[in-house]
Amino acid sequence: MKRELLGRTPAILNVGLETLVTGPRAAGAAVTHLDWRPAGDGEPALARALARLTGDARTDAANDAAVAGMLAARPHLVDVELRAEDIWPHLWEGGARLLTHAGAPLPWEAMCEPMKGTLIGAMLYEGWAQDEAEARGRLTAGEVRFVQNHDLGAVGPMSGTISPSMPMFVVRDAAHGNMAYTNLSEGIGRVLRFGAYGPEVIARLQWLGLTVAPALKSALAELEGGVDLRAIQSQALLMGDEVHSRNAAATALFHMAIGGALAGSAYDRARSREVLDFIAGTSQFFLNLSMVASKAIMDAAHGVARSSIVTAIARNGVTTAIRVSSLGARWFEAPSDVPVGLFFAGFAQRDANPDLGDSSICETAGYGGQSLAAAPALVQLVGGTVADAIAISREMHEIAWARNPDMALPNLDFAGAPASIDVRKVVDNGIRPLLTTGIAHRQAGIGQIGAGMVRVPMTCFTQAVMALAERA
Amino acid sequence: MKRELLGRTPAILNVGLETLVTGPRAAGAAVTHLDWRPAGDGEPALARALARLTGDARTDAANDAAVAGMLAARPHLVDVELRAEDIWPHLWEGGARLLTHAGAPLPWEAMCEPMKGTLIGAMLYEGWAQDEAEARGRLTAGEVRFVQNHDLGAVGPMSGTISPSMPMFVVRDAAHGNMAYTNLSEGIGRVLRFGAYGPEVIARLQWLGLTVAPALKSALAELEGGVDLRAIQSQALLMGDEVHSRNAAATALFHMAIGGALAGSAYDRARSREVLDFIAGTSQFFLNLSMVASKAIMDAAHGVARSSIVTAIARNGVTTAIRVSSLGARWFEAPSDVPVGLFFAGFAQRDANPDLGDSSICETAGYGGQSLAAAPALVQLVGGTVADAIAISREMHEIAWARNPDMALPNLDFAGAPASIDVRKVVDNGIRPLLTTGIAHRQAGIGQIGAGMVRVPMTCFTQAVMALAERA
Repeated sequence: MKRELLGRTPAILNVGLETLVTGPRAAGAAVTHLDWRPAGDGEPALARALARLTGDARTDAANDAAVAGMLAARPHLVDVELRAEDIWPHLWEGGARLLTHAGAPLPWEAMCEPMKGTLIGAMLYEGWAQDEAEARGRLTAGEVRFVQNHDLGAVGPMSGTISPSMPMFVVRDAAHGNMAYTNLSEGIGRVLRFGAYGPEVIARLQWLGLTVAPALKSALAELEGGVDLRAIQSQALLMGDEVHSRNAAATALFHMAIGGALAGSAYDRARSREVLDFIAGTSQFFLNLSMVASKAIMDAAHGVARSSIVTAIARNGVTTAIRVSSLGARWFEAPSDVPVGLFFAGFAQRDANPDLGDSSICETAGYGGQSLAAAPALVQLVGGTVADAIAISREMHEIAWARNPDMALPNLDFAGAPASIDVRKVVDNGIRPLLTTGIAHRQAGIGQIGAGMVRVPMTCFTQAVMALAERA
Repeated sequence: MKRELLGRTPAILNVGLETLVTGPRAAGAAVTHLDWRPAGDGEPALARALARLTGDARTDAANDAAVAGMLAARPHLVDVELRAEDIWPHLWEGGARLLTHAGAPLPWEAMCEPMKGTLIGAMLYEGWAQDEAEARGRLTAGEVRFVQNHDLGAVGPMSGTISPSMPMFVVRDAAHGNMAYTNLSEGIGRVLRFGAYGPEVIARLQWLGLTVAPALKSALAELEGGVDLRAIQSQALLMGDEVHSRNAAATALFHMAIGGALAGSAYDRARSREVLDFIAGTSQFFLNLSMVASKAIMDAAHGVARSSIVTAIARNGVTTAIRVSSLGARWFEAPSDVPVGLFFAGFAQRDANPDLGDSSICETAGYGGQSLAAAPALVQLVGGTVADAIAISREMHEIAWARNPDMALPNLDFAGAPASIDVRKVVDNGIRPLLTTGIAHRQAGIGQIGAGMVRVPMTCFTQAVMALAERA
């Protein structure tokens, strides 16, 4: 028997450490290597924490309850508030200078350049500085206070900044009554959210406030109950959008939802046309609305004791951070990865800023990377195939606690999208959530340079698992 | 050797007549049967005709020229004519009573009941009769002349009837200058085109003429160059439509194209809202526009000597008929099959009328059944899977002369849709074009009862091959 074995070329099945088979493989052995790692990736404390949580009936039940909240949520766009300070008067009381930003809190010195560019632009828009140098000086001197969007029940794409005179979308979850907010899409090109702050950026912001916001407010006043955002998201998944980085269908559906009401309102005719044509020409117009709908949906899953469901993913351009349903407002943070993608002419991967923006709230609700199978056209844009798109949604299912039957994915034969990321499954399976995203230039003042994909750092999830185990 | 063969269970590969292997199969032999038939299906004259045409360099070159015409066509919606009689004054000169219909010509007696219902409704709408009995009497008495839509450069869904005071979409091919026409979508429910003619049907037609048509005319007056219909078709293929029986995205894109212009026009505000909300609520609104765009595209492929490309497929509810590029206005007709599909509550397959309508012009241009891979949601509706949808587009490629690179199908990894049906390939491969279609009740006065699929009779193509060979 032994002799027979030695007389043949050995066939080796190896599990775990690949280095063990380097020698035999070099010697010509047929090696099949299984890339298995022990739960917790070999860290004993993490493995113990995971063992305590995995299959824990109370955590499972809590996750079912959190998902039930998500599935019941019915976010509706009910209003446009013309000035953010009318939503949060306390923030800007007595002329206080305060600006919000995406992701977890961080001081001015630590911020990435595109976020600094956005804040400079907001200073100019508010008239708190006359030029870039003055704005930068005041920001550096600590004259402006910063607040993160998520603490206000708000979200904003990329740098995500909200300033007191910006108009805001107002969303109400008709099922639970909770509110959520976001700013309006500025369209494409040089825009504040990507860190640009030139005169055309400020002019666009003023036009948004003076023309777009009152138009949409007029339209919404004609629509009893507002616009059902989740219905639009669900339909758009059947129409080639993953409703994060591709919103072509969702934007068209939103146009249909408000176009008649605006045309029938008393709002100025020429401006009504400007606004409807602006939306028609801005295929990502719905992004902000998909984000705020996702925020309202995830708030309905937040605060369930013992639940291990991720209720927010947010990036400030330096760190990526997650919140977990049962762990309150605490962020679990790690340095952001740099998105890989397709770049506009004249830009390249080396110009890309690390991952930035609150828009990853979409993935926590099951849109974006989780629903990539819905959007082959988006995957094609970054060099992938339909099969890649499908494979990623299947992979994301491995870390989801449930599917959302209202989010049918045609290319998965209409199975519901994987909606509800379970930190236990992320760590146990070693699969990081994939986000679709826009890419900002790493310097201030330039703006968007491409679009692509990125994954959430594993450390966010290992920290969360440890925190959950401590509580359990 | 012989002994060895007889000692085993025989394994038989059979090509052609399956009856030859019935015996061995019954006796337990392993039979692999290839369903091959000789070209022309065993008819010597047809086989000779096909042999003469297949691989014929002049036919191939003619088809290349016809397809070049299709690919160059750029149909734009340029106007709404408020009354059909202003497009074709000669038809209704001196108060002549004339109505048009879909498909090839046929006399009143031969028409199917839903087409009779439509003509009764058109009589009531025009005030040519006060009630159904009077209308039926006049039609039976031969007081009304009939003209087929295709002879006017027009198309109409289902019965397809155009009467003198109906509003019409006016389309111009910006590349070749040719014009094409169609009527406006009446929306869903009880509608004239499916053979309903009750008071609500007539009221809807009047509203279309008095409210919808002038609104769209006002919008188009604001849009220089009109609306690029082919661009909408191409985008919609990326958004889950096959742009025949599913037009959810195309309708939304059309809403975006005209919404701003209408809101900015001087047209009455309340009516503007009615019209935009009507379009938003009618996911098949774009069907008529996809048809008329396809008509303009196929007219650009028609009249190329020796070409074997199908330039029209049209059904009058009794026969299905095709035209071929090099064979002029001649129809090659055969009895229509009955569509198989999904039925509204209370109706069943036995209620279905045979295949009806000019909308199959969409398939001649590569939309509909040819592009089924684009629309899994449509296939799901009739009980199929994504794989079925993809398989049908692949099958349709077997009978297409070319792919249209402007019609990318995501689920074929963005390969162009098979656009341009070659009668030689249909006969040679024995594959009949598949059409997606609405289904009318076989009785007059009821209307739409479902949606489904049907194939074009093979006889249309064998006749066309014989005619092409005679000419060659």
